[in-house]
Amino acid sequence: MSTIDYYNWRYATKEFNSEKKITNSDLEIIKESIRLSPSSYGLQLFKVFIIESQKLKDKLRKVSFNQSQISDASHLFVFCNYTKVLEKDIDLYIQNKSLIQQMPITKNEGYGVFLKKNLLKKETEETSIWTNNQVYIALANLMTTCASLKIDSCPIEGFEASKYNEILNINERNMNAAVVCAVGYRSKLDTSQHEKKVRKSSQDLFEII
Amino acid sequence: MSTIDYYNWRYATKEFNSEKKITNSDLEIIKESIRLSPSSYGLQLFKVFIIESQKLKDKLRKVSFNQSQISDASHLFVFCNYTKVLEKDIDLYIQNKSLIQQMPITKNEGYGVFLKKNLLKKETEETSIWTNNQVYIALANLMTTCASLKIDSCPIEGFEASKYNEILNINERNMNAAVVCAVGYRSKLDTSQHEKKVRKSSQDLFEII
Repeated sequence: MSTIDYYNWRYATKEFNSEKKITNSDLEIIKESIRLSPSSYGLQLFKVFIIESQKLKDKLRKVSFNQSQISDASHLFVFCNYTKVLEKDIDLYIQNKSLIQQMPITKNEGYGVFLKKNLLKKETEETSIWTNNQVYIALANLMTTCASLKIDSCPIEGFEASKYNEILNINERNMNAAVVCAVGYRSKLDTSQHEKKVRKSSQDLFEII
Repeated sequence: MSTIDYYNWRYATKEFNSEKKITNSDLEIIKESIRLSPSSYGLQLFKVFIIESQKLKDKLRKVSFNQSQISDASHLFVFCNYTKVLEKDIDLYIQNKSLIQQMPITKNEGYGVFLKKNLLKKETEETSIWTNNQVYIALANLMTTCASLKIDSCPIEGFEASKYNEILNINERNMNAAVVCAVGYRSKLDTSQHEKKVRKSSQDLFEII
């Protein structure tokens, strides 16, 4: 199977089978696809809440235009981007880099100073737009990896982010619910699984110069 | 090979082998990975410029902080998001959907009205932020598919978008250069290929509720 097979197989699942749950081993693979996703400067300025609690999924559905996927999916992934870059975020990255690459921290300190100079001065809105973008790379990798495991997914932007932020209690943690992905198994009754995928032609989408 | 192998294999290539070019058949697979990428409402409100011209790559390098990947990569992918949604974008989608799914266009017209109601009223900035996000899904799928083909890539945000827009002449086409990806083959001299990947631990990145 190639990645193209995965992209062709997947579709935005409208109805999940609420009885069928993802196994722990598959969940670990999905998490790893998110964790390994590239991000700007490698900083990973986001957190992913994985909602297993039925009670919480039901609560979030109410602030997601009552979309059934929110409560019927096996797991709900809520990608939350950082709205501010703090000094400690960069310090943690430099520490982590030094540890993983087995270098003395002094060798990476200059890079830390460079990152701070560039990132700490950014306005909240600019930071938020930028970290929000990064989250979509991780979202894409989650969807691809799910498809490779024959697990269904549905990315969802239709939800009240401010209500999510309240419910997850992340406002004071400088985070914002950016995008959600419902993950699980399709219901046999979901008619959208039989619809042909609609995409622009190559001629419309690309310009080769 | 699993997707996790692809994510582990890939790295942000710092030095490309400027002699080694992507084959046409691989280029078609990479394009297909972008074309099949999901996007909000399936509208694909972006265009991808694929730069093969050495002269143009050299010119773009000058407005990309002189990063060597811009001119040394085999192909440069410039993802340009739409900054406005026009009525014709939605009409084209509805026509395309009707054609691909072999439905009478009248069956989809209601959905077209719904999309117009929701999207045409958006401010330019809100639209641009939203379409920019979508582009990162396609970027991620490009990188994953390249890795599956053992092709290297480097996503780049460090470039002067306004200069790209001028050079590509897309300002009056309501598009903006959102993100760039250099694609090709690593140079043997690129020492960053030997560095261990730096990522947060699962404990730091996820919260399971």
